[in-house]
Amino acid sequence: MKLSTQPYKGTRDFYPEDMCLRNWMFAKMRRVCESYGYEEYDVPVLEPLELYASKTSEEIINQQSFSFLDRGDRKVIMRPEITPSVSRMVAARRQELGYPLRLYSIPNCFRYERPQKGRLREFWQLNADIFGVESIEADTEMIKLADDIMKEFGAKEGMYEIRVNSRKFLDKKVKEAAPKVEMQEVTRLIDNFEKMDETDFEAGLSRAVEKPDGLYQFLISGAETEELKEIKSKCKSSGVDIRVEHTLARGFDYYTDIVFEVFDKNPGNNRSMFGGGRYDNLLSNFGVEPVPSVGFGMGDATLLNFVKANKLVPELKTSTDVAVLLIGNVYEKSRPIINSLRGLGVNVSVDYEDRKVDKKIKSALKRGERYVLFIGQDEIQKKQFTLKDLDTSKETKETLENIARTVKTRQTRTR
Amino acid sequence: MKLSTQPYKGTRDFYPEDMCLRNWMFAKMRRVCESYGYEEYDVPVLEPLELYASKTSEEIINQQSFSFLDRGDRKVIMRPEITPSVSRMVAARRQELGYPLRLYSIPNCFRYERPQKGRLREFWQLNADIFGVESIEADTEMIKLADDIMKEFGAKEGMYEIRVNSRKFLDKKVKEAAPKVEMQEVTRLIDNFEKMDETDFEAGLSRAVEKPDGLYQFLISGAETEELKEIKSKCKSSGVDIRVEHTLARGFDYYTDIVFEVFDKNPGNNRSMFGGGRYDNLLSNFGVEPVPSVGFGMGDATLLNFVKANKLVPELKTSTDVAVLLIGNVYEKSRPIINSLRGLGVNVSVDYEDRKVDKKIKSALKRGERYVLFIGQDEIQKKQFTLKDLDTSKETKETLENIARTVKTRQTRTR
Repeated sequence: MKLSTQPYKGTRDFYPEDMCLRNWMFAKMRRVCESYGYEEYDVPVLEPLELYASKTSEEIINQQSFSFLDRGDRKVIMRPEITPSVSRMVAARRQELGYPLRLYSIPNCFRYERPQKGRLREFWQLNADIFGVESIEADTEMIKLADDIMKEFGAKEGMYEIRVNSRKFLDKKVKEAAPKVEMQEVTRLIDNFEKMDETDFEAGLSRAVEKPDGLYQFLISGAETEELKEIKSKCKSSGVDIRVEHTLARGFDYYTDIVFEVFDKNPGNNRSMFGGGRYDNLLSNFGVEPVPSVGFGMGDATLLNFVKANKLVPELKTSTDVAVLLIGNVYEKSRPIINSLRGLGVNVSVDYEDRKVDKKIKSALKRGERYVLFIGQDEIQKKQFTLKDLDTSKETKETLENIARTVKTRQTRTR
Repeated sequence: MKLSTQPYKGTRDFYPEDMCLRNWMFAKMRRVCESYGYEEYDVPVLEPLELYASKTSEEIINQQSFSFLDRGDRKVIMRPEITPSVSRMVAARRQELGYPLRLYSIPNCFRYERPQKGRLREFWQLNADIFGVESIEADTEMIKLADDIMKEFGAKEGMYEIRVNSRKFLDKKVKEAAPKVEMQEVTRLIDNFEKMDETDFEAGLSRAVEKPDGLYQFLISGAETEELKEIKSKCKSSGVDIRVEHTLARGFDYYTDIVFEVFDKNPGNNRSMFGGGRYDNLLSNFGVEPVPSVGFGMGDATLLNFVKANKLVPELKTSTDVAVLLIGNVYEKSRPIINSLRGLGVNVSVDYEDRKVDKKIKSALKRGERYVLFIGQDEIQKKQFTLKDLDTSKETKETLENIARTVKTRQTRTR
């Protein structure tokens, strides 16, 4: 039987050029998070199912989870997100940890979705969370952090918008309008406001709640509570403009107060890119005193679409600096030279194969390497080596030290 | 119901200090691999089961795999290793890729094992592979790379040993001694030689094969084939001593020729740490022309035991450089100062909470931060800030620039 070379549906292979792009993205996320004092952590891919069941969102658990019985008949789930996991970690060391505690991670998460643009079965997601701050400074910091990450990617003001709402206030209004209806049902409907046309939304609301008119009026009003006014002003003084949006609810059930999202304003891709909010009660599930928490999750696929659509991806280069081509029978003698080059901080690949030089150069080009270095008897004797720049086709004879300098300072991508 | 704070059996939570150690390990692996021209790649955690079934090892698939049916009734497996996956990737772009192709990755892999020292259900594993080199230079490079990684961790000669064998030659001898027996059965027995006592091994061999005596004599002889002599000499000229060991077979079914392993010589932990070998036929499963391949996998848990036992772990520090403590109502005014510090490359956490200074310092200590910086009205006016070194308890008044210099050059770990 011939095996397929395709990856499993909704997952991706990362060839070196894809990995390079992913590493570029993650490095930016890491840099900004660490500049705010967030420390990196990680959680297992597999978790007991009960950790996620009824904590995250019914839709995810019942329809989109990769969950199964392990060989010991224990129900497990491949993490569909990681907020319950990080809460578990904090709960386990509730007393030993120092607050405010800032944590970030870039895990891959798993959801059984119908693959489409920006939605995959395996995706990566930056998670940044701050634990132990009750006051709105934490919510503000989280929004500012998200904004700074967008700016780190080169995003400009008009490209995106940050929207904020108070889940606490929204829940109160929903309760008033629909005292007997399951809250989550109404919240989910409201969260879809952006994607529905007005009449459909109103009709849906009328069916779902007892007193739809007051709720509808509230949702489309820009009414601001004291809390929303405060966060708006605090964000403003940090240089971030935010917009209050009463229909913003966010999918997860665990949010308790301020929620926010970063919205793509590109007309061709108008959608919520990522978001987060405050979840003050999650730790109580572990039988410990709750810790006030705020966090957000930023998916890689959506962000990648955004940076590509806005032409924010720079030229990326291979990690290999130079490809050494051995000329003739110089394997033994070339070893100390190659070691010296590596000692000078140069990343060196070696082509040992006994074949024509132009074939070797073609291979180097396929690998995206910009420079090739020829090492033969003559070069070894004279300690001068021929370096060829495959971008310009220029050849120069140089000492090892000069070669190291040249290949380490190259600026452009050649893939 | 109270949820457990424990991670799923055989998996680990990585708190910041654990993550710091993991990042230290991975950075070293990356640095050495890239200096040899290996480029990073990644494959999905989930793969179709058939990709691994009968390719990897029966024991792993039948007893140790995390495999299940997805919601579309497709058999999937969480990667127990990644050699079949990377082979799939190479097969998919057989013609476009440039050879020699060098790839590395540090994926987490999953096996349902009884957790014990160095064996976990979720573990990370450096994988380095070279594709497209038929000659023994590739096998030599792989052994040299493994040796260099060990040295990068500070390992000295006597701490470990590299053992080599030819699977091709071993298979021939097995075939001669046991023409009618399933090869894998005998290979598995031989691979356990190191762990068994002599009499048991001989008895087992007598039961398993038709002509045990010749095979047993061969296994304990140091007889070297031309090929083994050549790799020994090539490794020697690269500065690596290797030992031929005829009982070395390696667990995976796909090896075709040279196999090697790095063996821990610590008397308290005498065991094979990791290894690899040549697998020239794996690509033929995808209906493409095979590509000669050599690779190895190095697990994180075993390596961690090794570096800890040999005291090779350095003092590691938090990524956060300084904790800012706000004194009084200075939230607004402190913002540009904190931004300036971040602009100077300093990673800054902020404690917004309204509580006593000694409580805030206690928190910073719990987080492993070494420096705290006080920002109050007075400091803002005079542009001189009080920096406290929590290691020495010394306080100094400094400009922002001096503070940036001090906190960025700290050397010691304070966790």
